[in-house]
Amino acid sequence: MNKSYEAYRKLFQEIADLKYASALMQWDQETYLPPKGNEIRGRQIATVTEIAHRMFTDPKTGDLLEELINNNKLNHRERKNVELSYLDYEKNKKLPSDFVRKMSDSVNKSFHAWVQARKENDFTIFQQPLQEIIILKRQEAEYLGYEKHPYDALMNEYDKGLTVASTDKLFADLIPQLSILLNEINQQKQINNEFLQQHFDKDDQWRFGIDLLKQIHFDFDAGRQDISEHPFTINFNSQDVRVTTRIDEKDFANMTWSCLHEGGHALYEQGLPINEYGLPLGEYCSLSIHESQSRLWENCIGRSLPFWKFHYSKLQKIFPRQFENISVEHFYKGINKVIPSLIRTEADELTYHFHVMIRYEIEKKLIEGTIESNDIPAIWNEYYEKLLGVKVTDDKNGCLQDVHWSHGSFGYFATYSIGSLYAAQLWNNIHKANSRVNSEISFGNTDSIFRWLQNEIYAHGRYFTSEELCKKATGETLNPAYFINYAKHKYGEIYCI
Amino acid sequence: MNKSYEAYRKLFQEIADLKYASALMQWDQETYLPPKGNEIRGRQIATVTEIAHRMFTDPKTGDLLEELINNNKLNHRERKNVELSYLDYEKNKKLPSDFVRKMSDSVNKSFHAWVQARKENDFTIFQQPLQEIIILKRQEAEYLGYEKHPYDALMNEYDKGLTVASTDKLFADLIPQLSILLNEINQQKQINNEFLQQHFDKDDQWRFGIDLLKQIHFDFDAGRQDISEHPFTINFNSQDVRVTTRIDEKDFANMTWSCLHEGGHALYEQGLPINEYGLPLGEYCSLSIHESQSRLWENCIGRSLPFWKFHYSKLQKIFPRQFENISVEHFYKGINKVIPSLIRTEADELTYHFHVMIRYEIEKKLIEGTIESNDIPAIWNEYYEKLLGVKVTDDKNGCLQDVHWSHGSFGYFATYSIGSLYAAQLWNNIHKANSRVNSEISFGNTDSIFRWLQNEIYAHGRYFTSEELCKKATGETLNPAYFINYAKHKYGEIYCI
Repeated sequence: MNKSYEAYRKLFQEIADLKYASALMQWDQETYLPPKGNEIRGRQIATVTEIAHRMFTDPKTGDLLEELINNNKLNHRERKNVELSYLDYEKNKKLPSDFVRKMSDSVNKSFHAWVQARKENDFTIFQQPLQEIIILKRQEAEYLGYEKHPYDALMNEYDKGLTVASTDKLFADLIPQLSILLNEINQQKQINNEFLQQHFDKDDQWRFGIDLLKQIHFDFDAGRQDISEHPFTINFNSQDVRVTTRIDEKDFANMTWSCLHEGGHALYEQGLPINEYGLPLGEYCSLSIHESQSRLWENCIGRSLPFWKFHYSKLQKIFPRQFENISVEHFYKGINKVIPSLIRTEADELTYHFHVMIRYEIEKKLIEGTIESNDIPAIWNEYYEKLLGVKVTDDKNGCLQDVHWSHGSFGYFATYSIGSLYAAQLWNNIHKANSRVNSEISFGNTDSIFRWLQNEIYAHGRYFTSEELCKKATGETLNPAYFINYAKHKYGEIYCI
Repeated sequence: MNKSYEAYRKLFQEIADLKYASALMQWDQETYLPPKGNEIRGRQIATVTEIAHRMFTDPKTGDLLEELINNNKLNHRERKNVELSYLDYEKNKKLPSDFVRKMSDSVNKSFHAWVQARKENDFTIFQQPLQEIIILKRQEAEYLGYEKHPYDALMNEYDKGLTVASTDKLFADLIPQLSILLNEINQQKQINNEFLQQHFDKDDQWRFGIDLLKQIHFDFDAGRQDISEHPFTINFNSQDVRVTTRIDEKDFANMTWSCLHEGGHALYEQGLPINEYGLPLGEYCSLSIHESQSRLWENCIGRSLPFWKFHYSKLQKIFPRQFENISVEHFYKGINKVIPSLIRTEADELTYHFHVMIRYEIEKKLIEGTIESNDIPAIWNEYYEKLLGVKVTDDKNGCLQDVHWSHGSFGYFATYSIGSLYAAQLWNNIHKANSRVNSEISFGNTDSIFRWLQNEIYAHGRYFTSEELCKKATGETLNPAYFINYAKHKYGEIYCI
């Protein structure tokens, strides 16, 4: 191996070691950290993050990368790694070290404020720490630079090339078509899914969730599941990928589809090439593609009739009383009931996009500075009433429901909708590649799906952009028509439209 | 605050942040890490450890410390911190960075080999990785320097000033007196403690252990307990101190006294001054003093009759069948039965010192190079037969029982015996300070003990050496007579000698 490339590899793997040390401290913070440990943990994470940033943005790193950019002895994968690292370097050196530390400190503070605010159901506890984050994110957008809208700079962090212009256009295309479908559904007979809100024992739910993860190929020798306030997936390398879930004993859906959602993310991370540890080709493509993986397993597969044709009898064995008089067809309709509601993570596949758009619109305004954090509750509640026709009862069921802002993740939400659109497009191609896929799923066999994703998505790491990867896997770039067709077909059947 | 002192404080707290990030990765490795995550975790720990070492041994650190050593504006605590850090610096810069990394890599490899070797009950799996560690430890002794014996350099790491000469003398004093006592005990009627080996449900044991920890003032808001292969205590600051235990359903003693032992360590760590985080005065005095804390709670308190006068009725409620016909006096005698055995952590308070001495003798020979790792099983088994009269049946119950060597902890074991001696001396003074202490314990009240330790031990951090601290707290330096008297009195009563 080329000597400079070897030095580059060594350096970037060391930076990755620090990054993942910090990630483990964050995982621990949300799973097992005793309460008094919070304060010092915050500074520990900040220090390790800052040192990693310092190593990454060191001018020597730039020199090494520039030398390699001009080196013509690299093979195509090595070249790609170097090019992507150089792009990251150029972007990262725009952020001063003390800014990165300030952000890390603020995120730590605001995360705890968010936990507290949720506990006390009071947005005002979170408002000031959040305002600090918003001011820092505006500053970050200026540091990073943008052509048209400051929010572009932040969205670009999660999906290269994503802009306000393209996202506005996407929602303008999607939302009206969904509104029409929602109207049609509204005129049909409503589905009774009250059976999902009974008592479901915590431990039984936990075991069922673990079983689902195993069924969809989650490798428990290379990962684990734990409990946290808000479900998430985190990885420390592709051989150690961890998901979390939360269990509500009064709601069967809460844990079940969070397992499948985070499981979908985790399969992607477990499938990334370990021999590229610490280098771009060992990383995921973009958050939109990441979300396509979670939404694919959660919805296209996990809310399909074939999937439950296999799993429902097992479920009935665990909860015999609760599902006594419910047929699998009724269960299937129940878990796909379309109804405007307050909580994004519990929303059906159609109204979900309205939840996302609301957050997108609020973030856009926060970053451009036309609103401030104290405007959030009112504007949030107004949007929910106007777009979904639901009245927000309190902050916990309103603007305090998502962890993202407390983490400083602005520009992230749009990738949820875009991910769903990618998922539908990939799903269409999975069926094209194997016409027996539904039948296989109904026998509990998702091997061919897993293999297809392994080859078409996981194995490529960050080699392609979202658009390139989509084109390679499906023959065309993102086309929302696949999702619209998927939705019309699925809900047309369920609601007899 | 002095500007240079502030810079020193900031730097050392950052180094501590890295050290504790690495500690969290180690804790995770022994509690929750999925098996395939081991390989990369090893390099992650090595990188973070090396960066911390690099920052610590940077000549700029030395310059800063030298400037502060000559600064006459520091108060006495600041001065002490600087002096101790300078001693650490001088010691640490003797170890080259690549040596530290090599050690960290080797430790990671050998720890996993040890786990595997224990599982397969086969020392040969561990032998080669252990040999690598031994060679590195010999090299470390040379780097660190010593006056008389290379093993002095390693023991000095755990208790400043500890030497082969002083430890040889100590054992030469202690062991013959214990042998006499053991002989006398041997001639008495033997105690039946078979009731400890029944079935004790895992979850019930776990809850009882948690309750014991709470009773002895372990703060669960600033710590937690988990399960691991080998019990240990680890801390990431005094507000986050974690203990682990293991549960054997066929043996009640295993978990119970490991909880009290690790709990004693943990109380010390939780009691260290948080405002000195990352600085010497926020650290423990020495491992000997640390062990005095664990042995005090495990033995002087946790194997005393007053302690069980309070806890035994609770225990009988949890395990009514198992303790049905056993009086608290019989229970007390049972848990103090003196019998030569194979496992150090399960040994009684008297034969324990023989276990320690055997390890001390073997380590001494390994470091001076008169034996190698492949000699260990034979020499181990020979010592056990000669000194304790027991035949080692297999490696798992022999030379594979302790984690220490796999961690590279050579020079550690002697502090177990020395810690017990300190414990007896402190215990004598706790009684002098409060003559009602036994009566209080029998009512479940250990507050005055906890307060005494807080004031006399915990609060001082590393301000004093072991000897100084002992003298301050008890009026004299280490005197094994206190342990001998304690042992004669306790076992004289139990065995009617």
